[in-house]
Amino acid sequence: MTKERLYLYDTTLRDGQQTQGVQFSVAEKLRIAEALDGLGIDYVEGGWPGANPTDSAFFDAAPDLRARLTAFGMTKRAGRSAENDDVLAAVMNAGTGAVCLVGKSDSYHVAAALGISEEENLENIRASVAHLVASGREALFDAEHFFDGYKRTPSYALACCRAALEAGARWIVLCDTNGGTLPDEIARITGEVIAAGIPGNRLGIHCHNDTEMAVAGSLAAVGAGARQIQGTLNGLGERCGNASLTSLIPTLLLKAPWCERFDIGVTREALEGLTQVSRMLDDILNRVPMKQLPYVGASAFAHKAGLHASAILKDPSTYEHVEPSAVGNARIVPMSNQAGQSNLRRRLAEAGIEVEKGDPALARILDGIKAREDKGYSYDTAQASFELLAREELGQMPDFFEVKRYKVTVERRKNKRNEMVSVSEAVVVVKVDGEKKLSVSESFDAQGCDRGPVNALWQALAKDLGRYSAQLADMHLVDFKVRITQGGTEAVTRVIIDSADGKGRRWSTVGVSANIVDASFEALLDAIRWKLVRDRLRAEAPELESAG
Amino acid sequence: MTKERLYLYDTTLRDGQQTQGVQFSVAEKLRIAEALDGLGIDYVEGGWPGANPTDSAFFDAAPDLRARLTAFGMTKRAGRSAENDDVLAAVMNAGTGAVCLVGKSDSYHVAAALGISEEENLENIRASVAHLVASGREALFDAEHFFDGYKRTPSYALACCRAALEAGARWIVLCDTNGGTLPDEIARITGEVIAAGIPGNRLGIHCHNDTEMAVAGSLAAVGAGARQIQGTLNGLGERCGNASLTSLIPTLLLKAPWCERFDIGVTREALEGLTQVSRMLDDILNRVPMKQLPYVGASAFAHKAGLHASAILKDPSTYEHVEPSAVGNARIVPMSNQAGQSNLRRRLAEAGIEVEKGDPALARILDGIKAREDKGYSYDTAQASFELLAREELGQMPDFFEVKRYKVTVERRKNKRNEMVSVSEAVVVVKVDGEKKLSVSESFDAQGCDRGPVNALWQALAKDLGRYSAQLADMHLVDFKVRITQGGTEAVTRVIIDSADGKGRRWSTVGVSANIVDASFEALLDAIRWKLVRDRLRAEAPELESAG
Repeated sequence: MTKERLYLYDTTLRDGQQTQGVQFSVAEKLRIAEALDGLGIDYVEGGWPGANPTDSAFFDAAPDLRARLTAFGMTKRAGRSAENDDVLAAVMNAGTGAVCLVGKSDSYHVAAALGISEEENLENIRASVAHLVASGREALFDAEHFFDGYKRTPSYALACCRAALEAGARWIVLCDTNGGTLPDEIARITGEVIAAGIPGNRLGIHCHNDTEMAVAGSLAAVGAGARQIQGTLNGLGERCGNASLTSLIPTLLLKAPWCERFDIGVTREALEGLTQVSRMLDDILNRVPMKQLPYVGASAFAHKAGLHASAILKDPSTYEHVEPSAVGNARIVPMSNQAGQSNLRRRLAEAGIEVEKGDPALARILDGIKAREDKGYSYDTAQASFELLAREELGQMPDFFEVKRYKVTVERRKNKRNEMVSVSEAVVVVKVDGEKKLSVSESFDAQGCDRGPVNALWQALAKDLGRYSAQLADMHLVDFKVRITQGGTEAVTRVIIDSADGKGRRWSTVGVSANIVDASFEALLDAIRWKLVRDRLRAEAPELESAG
Repeated sequence: MTKERLYLYDTTLRDGQQTQGVQFSVAEKLRIAEALDGLGIDYVEGGWPGANPTDSAFFDAAPDLRARLTAFGMTKRAGRSAENDDVLAAVMNAGTGAVCLVGKSDSYHVAAALGISEEENLENIRASVAHLVASGREALFDAEHFFDGYKRTPSYALACCRAALEAGARWIVLCDTNGGTLPDEIARITGEVIAAGIPGNRLGIHCHNDTEMAVAGSLAAVGAGARQIQGTLNGLGERCGNASLTSLIPTLLLKAPWCERFDIGVTREALEGLTQVSRMLDDILNRVPMKQLPYVGASAFAHKAGLHASAILKDPSTYEHVEPSAVGNARIVPMSNQAGQSNLRRRLAEAGIEVEKGDPALARILDGIKAREDKGYSYDTAQASFELLAREELGQMPDFFEVKRYKVTVERRKNKRNEMVSVSEAVVVVKVDGEKKLSVSESFDAQGCDRGPVNALWQALAKDLGRYSAQLADMHLVDFKVRITQGGTEAVTRVIIDSADGKGRRWSTVGVSANIVDASFEALLDAIRWKLVRDRLRAEAPELESAG
């Protein structure tokens, strides 16, 4: 049986940005677009050029993608031509190969929200799509509120789709804008739309998760004949989110009947990077990744029940519907030391540390990690701190220097010009090669801006570490993330610091304390120690170098 | 058309407890059981008596419920009678009116996991259920791995169900234990089970969310004829969780065709308490409630897009599939750089501030917000800071006090017992009612743990604010979030502080600076000023009080 092609359209950068609290920077949009492209998504919607400076700047930065980069906008307004609509012009000016325009398809909205006649709205759709096509763009029409509109006035909803189709739209996307249409109804209406003459291979589906059925609704539409799915990574999006591509992609690739009927742009190989892409997005958003996320969550293959755990050891398929590695995820069996140790050895090998199977140090490292995770540490991203902990258990960690004490002060007061200004100052006392060294530093950057206590501590520490000082010259802090989490029964602060150096390395370390400055300092120290130990190893055996 | 009765079975206290990191105390189980009962759930599964001390103690405490309190266990083991199986005896001894026993229905599991013959397994089911019925209990049989078993050997999976049915089970529950069966397949197989002679009104469905379709799968089974749904609050449960009753209940009560075809035990009135029950569970688990949860999440009725927000003002049904108050939730139209004036007026009205359409202050407030968003502020969640900014533009903000300067110190050094310890200390100088006040505070909590510089600043500030001090006595900080973001061309720190007071209010404020202590202090000051202005308004006109 020949498989049909099913297209995936990602709107993380546009509808995903409608999530409360989400605001991507241009650099973040570029990282996400590249990750989507790496997965093999067909269309990457980048935003609405002209609607805000970030979206415009993103299209100016024009990433080079295999995927079709798509600009989003709306159909022209009434009373002017498509050529003379400045909002539409801004969208066209982004110069993307594909453009997706949202327009009304519900007669009630045409009257209540736009206040124009039904014919005017049809003309807006027709003229806008024709304008895109005339300038050589692939045109997509997002039929807003399509299902509500169809239930109200089927003939008008269909007329809107036909207007776009006849004007040359490649895709008509049926949008369940409110998220209230249930899968059975989506299937029925999609079937009726196709029966009314709109070809299924020109139809897309855009679902929201307001009844927790966006994934099911999307598949229902495909079952009825639609051939494009719109969604977002991790189900980001307005209100309860959009259909989650992170859940849909594995189902489409791994599960019958979908994997037997359809080809998608994502390969089985790319699928193995899915968990990483999902976590990267949370990292950008500074969110704790949701453990329960289907396929990619940290708990998705965690087997807590004792009965399950023992069966899993005999045959994983007893309690797993797919193989965790297929989506780049891992099985967690809390009861099983065996599974823990093989995982650990793999991770150590990634850090360039070879430990024999059955080495008793493995159990000590696992215990050490567990004890620290109970206190609020997390080694998911802080691979460099994990490596230091393992090296210590293995007796492979040199004592570079010892911090005897530190003190940091932040003062805010008026300056001579009667402006409120801050001054941070840190004093650090270390012992290096038997010698005690006191360093003090303020925290001003080149612009005279005070960068706060953590930066002051970093400056003071780096100022004089004896024979190690020269090594720290090419090192700098690139990111700083803070989360309140649980440490035992107390709320504690977890700080993750990302560092980079002139050798192109980038590494992450973690610190935990009820005191945010302590937690930061601990992560700072780990960052420096990792740099020193890796520089030493590199000097000894350059070929063993690997990422941190 | 007469409605059919559809039954809801909650397993939050049993399968929900299989969630990674979840372990309820007896008192917590009692609170949750009572909340479920208040909603009108038909069956409340309390746990597995005998499997652990907490579950046994919960049944000993025997809450008095309208719902059927149900004990969970497994069918008797081979080689002994039901009467002589101590595991089963412990379940019976809980003395509940209903008992649910899980048993194998997949021939592969019978051989691989139990290592007994298929006939022995059938006899275990038969004898166990008969034993329950003989002692006057309502018997439920959880057919584990039913769908996988049915696909493997339909006749055997059906034989297991028949064995339970003929022994007198009230319900046969078809369990998709792995969570891998898709809704269409669930519907087909459920239909075939009914066609094979097991009546639909004796069939239940138990779905897991491993493909994000547990809700859709549950409804698919009901559509095919099943008449009991098993699920959990907030979709708690092993791996990706169980079917969420929090999502299912509103759909069953509010949305066609379900509300037209079925009666459930939950009334429309009880439904208005659903959001509160969902939040209570998160509170017990000490989790931040998931904003995106369908129906009950804080973002479920939040409208960020400017286009949406203006339509919402005209007619909420344009972008809402149900009325938020029906589930005890509330509409939110947050501020963001996508918002227009209509969005702004709506948001102001919610804060009790009425501004006429076209008032030039609206443009000033929008400009102020935009300017601050460019510096890295975010008002999506920090509604209280938004309100203060608006009140200032409108000349409605009293000058309660002025901070002249502050200084905070964190010192880490060895104590007398040679342990590294931290001490934070803050000095704050304020002017209140013309009087200068100096306050100093450390940051130790009741356990002697240093809580860091932000807490020290809060303690020092709250210590003496003249006539305002008494008002701050019932206020405390409940959460603290930090992220690095872009402020102009610089990386800056954005701090969000959540505060609460004894009047049951909870509010969020924001601060931004390159210095994390400054940013925190700014958010702290906003938190206090919001409290003071709201307390004053409440004293003047209590009926105007609204959420922050």
